[in-house]
Amino acid sequence: MVQRSEFLVQIADVRSTLVRMTGLTRDAISDASAALLTVSIDPVPRVRDLRTEISALAAAVEHDVYVVLAMQQPVASDLRTVLAALRSAANLHRMGVLSSHLATIAERRYPAPAVPAELLSVITDMADVAERLILKAGSVVARLDATLAAELVADDDAMDALHRKLFLILLNNWSHGVAAAIDTTLISRYYERFADHAASIGEEVRYLVSGERPPLDSGDDPWFDTVS
Amino acid sequence: MVQRSEFLVQIADVRSTLVRMTGLTRDAISDASAALLTVSIDPVPRVRDLRTEISALAAAVEHDVYVVLAMQQPVASDLRTVLAALRSAANLHRMGVLSSHLATIAERRYPAPAVPAELLSVITDMADVAERLILKAGSVVARLDATLAAELVADDDAMDALHRKLFLILLNNWSHGVAAAIDTTLISRYYERFADHAASIGEEVRYLVSGERPPLDSGDDPWFDTVS
Repeated sequence: MVQRSEFLVQIADVRSTLVRMTGLTRDAISDASAALLTVSIDPVPRVRDLRTEISALAAAVEHDVYVVLAMQQPVASDLRTVLAALRSAANLHRMGVLSSHLATIAERRYPAPAVPAELLSVITDMADVAERLILKAGSVVARLDATLAAELVADDDAMDALHRKLFLILLNNWSHGVAAAIDTTLISRYYERFADHAASIGEEVRYLVSGERPPLDSGDDPWFDTVS
Repeated sequence: MVQRSEFLVQIADVRSTLVRMTGLTRDAISDASAALLTVSIDPVPRVRDLRTEISALAAAVEHDVYVVLAMQQPVASDLRTVLAALRSAANLHRMGVLSSHLATIAERRYPAPAVPAELLSVITDMADVAERLILKAGSVVARLDATLAAELVADDDAMDALHRKLFLILLNNWSHGVAAAIDTTLISRYYERFADHAASIGEEVRYLVSGERPPLDSGDDPWFDTVS
């Protein structure tokens, strides 16, 4: 019984680290979007610092999970919890990296805008969806709410729809040159992957609660649906 | 002692599944590259089948790892081995997904080529590096060779150099329109991520052998180095 209560304390610590990581990731994507959408480099160093901090916490979760596995040797749903934590930390780590990629695009183009005027609306929508997803992911991890976790997957579909919309605009009389086309292709791809990782966290929590492992994410690229 | 020998049998099974996955992933990237470079859709269904098979094996590795953790409760280097296997399976799964993304680009453009003539040389080089990386990753997993594992990381740098080279060509008098610019940006990104995942497998094996966990991959995007 002592061992079990020790496990519960350790896993509560891991979970609170994950919740903290979701908060930092929200700040990272929010600052990165601000850099892109308001044409400012002020937020860029902060995004990089956040990315570093998120990666350090991901490494800390890995370490803690290793210790829990070695010392507590959890089974059944406890083991599922630990593995879900490990994968969620990896997802959050990647979301931090993607945020810093977005910030870097803003920085490279500054003082010119990286996002042409006609794409501001769709990228603003992507930024909003991304922020909603990470906010929700935080609640999902904090409350282990399977219903909210399912919503994350639906929100990911909203991002895919925006990704398609962006490509339709890009293909319709684009006048901003190749460099801007490359930038916006990558911006869109990074937001899309950010959303995929948030959805994966939702899948992890559903797995935790249900015990059923979902199919591995397909990572489908909705760009292909825009061009028949 | 019985338990220890059982563990060794189980982990040998997991490792042979991983080696088999590297073989399938090699076939997948090779077929996807053939579809792109020879302007053929014949290989495309095979790439999709391979992707499905790789994902199924990744799920099997996850399941086996779960069973090993629950039944054998490994510690120290045995525990490291199990976690490295779990992460390597995830890397190979993503490499299968990226291969199918590449095949889908070829399919969407067919019978037109997805790769304009002036980029054939650099994309051919990317395809060669990708195939060399996955071949080497197979040997690294089969032999747990830390020296070869370190080479994987160096080969990943070769891919980053090609990624930069491609963007320089794209930015220099591009005459193939926006759709082709989007295609080649994504093709290049997918090869680059494929290489990142191979390098991650190398890092896993170095971790296994040394016990030291590397920093989480930065996933830097060499595109940004091309434009100052």
